[in-house]
Amino acid sequence: MNIGVLGTGIVGRTISAHLAGGGHSVVIGTRDVAHTLAQSAPDAMGTPPFSAWHGSHAQVRLGTFAEAAAHGDVLINATVGHASLNALAAAGGDALAGKVLLDIANPLDFSHGMPPSLFVCNTDSLAEQIQRAFPALKVVKTLNIVTASVMVNPSLVAGGDHHMLLCGNDAGAREAVAGYLRDWFGWQHVLDLGDLSAARGMEMMLPVWLRLWGALQTPMFGYKIAR
Amino acid sequence: MNIGVLGTGIVGRTISAHLAGGGHSVVIGTRDVAHTLAQSAPDAMGTPPFSAWHGSHAQVRLGTFAEAAAHGDVLINATVGHASLNALAAAGGDALAGKVLLDIANPLDFSHGMPPSLFVCNTDSLAEQIQRAFPALKVVKTLNIVTASVMVNPSLVAGGDHHMLLCGNDAGAREAVAGYLRDWFGWQHVLDLGDLSAARGMEMMLPVWLRLWGALQTPMFGYKIAR
Repeated sequence: MNIGVLGTGIVGRTISAHLAGGGHSVVIGTRDVAHTLAQSAPDAMGTPPFSAWHGSHAQVRLGTFAEAAAHGDVLINATVGHASLNALAAAGGDALAGKVLLDIANPLDFSHGMPPSLFVCNTDSLAEQIQRAFPALKVVKTLNIVTASVMVNPSLVAGGDHHMLLCGNDAGAREAVAGYLRDWFGWQHVLDLGDLSAARGMEMMLPVWLRLWGALQTPMFGYKIAR
Repeated sequence: MNIGVLGTGIVGRTISAHLAGGGHSVVIGTRDVAHTLAQSAPDAMGTPPFSAWHGSHAQVRLGTFAEAAAHGDVLINATVGHASLNALAAAGGDALAGKVLLDIANPLDFSHGMPPSLFVCNTDSLAEQIQRAFPALKVVKTLNIVTASVMVNPSLVAGGDHHMLLCGNDAGAREAVAGYLRDWFGWQHVLDLGDLSAARGMEMMLPVWLRLWGALQTPMFGYKIAR
């Protein structure tokens, strides 16, 4: 499948490498291709420069947000939350119309230091902001509740015996994404929470996720909904 | 042990009955004893009147918030979130000083209809509001992430193979509460998230909990942190 991934950070790279390795045709999108390629040092979070990663993942093509969106039959938002709306605007409404968007972004606000708070929550969510701004897009919130390596390989945690959640306003898109999660990444346990307002709760899981990471001293965990 | 439970709703009743059944001396506190006893019909949520429950749980004594707090060597806040600060104020600072409070309350705001939002979140929490208002109290947030019957009997879900979280500013109080959770209720898996600011994340789990309840059509579930 042709897939457009928006965002060249760890999440975008991890998803893109996994999908390209699985035989999909992936364009990873960025705001400014020349700027992304020119980075030569790790960023403030210690993420290696894109070019260092791209050298060993040349099958993932780098393009603008617009090129990635135009390429993808399915789109994945892996941008940092505060950049998501601008990234999608740069992609252009025509390239988005009618397509399913897996929205992985979290509305983390680092402007007041660590730990981050959320810049939208409770009565709204980033996923709903995206859906309102691009009504022809079929936004499905998912994957935002685990670390990148677990997103693409849930069996790294408890042999895969934990849950992924999803929500979105289009029932067909939710069903399609449940299939992508299973077929692309191996998620065996996916819970459908219904319409996109459930993204409030999914994004509001981030603060406890950060504290669990601190307590466990590792981000390698997931949530099993025990019954 | 002498235990004071604040709040006569489902959570307060379930906790009180369980602890009294385990041989503890429990006073359950309410704002107005005569008013609580005078109720003769289920409330808006369908909860049976207190007197109907009390008839079969007479070993739990009913008192004012002040009487329950004075009785308890350990206190449990099972009030609805918007009533918590007033309940503790009615209990009186002297009755609270130096005591451990298990804070189960959630800051649910039903004033805008269903589903509820939170009246405090993200950069603050109800637990922190309580701690600031009553600095001599040792507030430990816990139990707020599961339904009442699971709080007191975690084995009702997945044979008990799921986690309870806790946090608080006093390390000794956190350790004591981990012991209470194990000894009183049978929690085998308790994760200590550190200082009380983690209550933001724990309270922010409520929106997804409500959506999971809707998707699963039952509140009988818990969270196993899968590793």
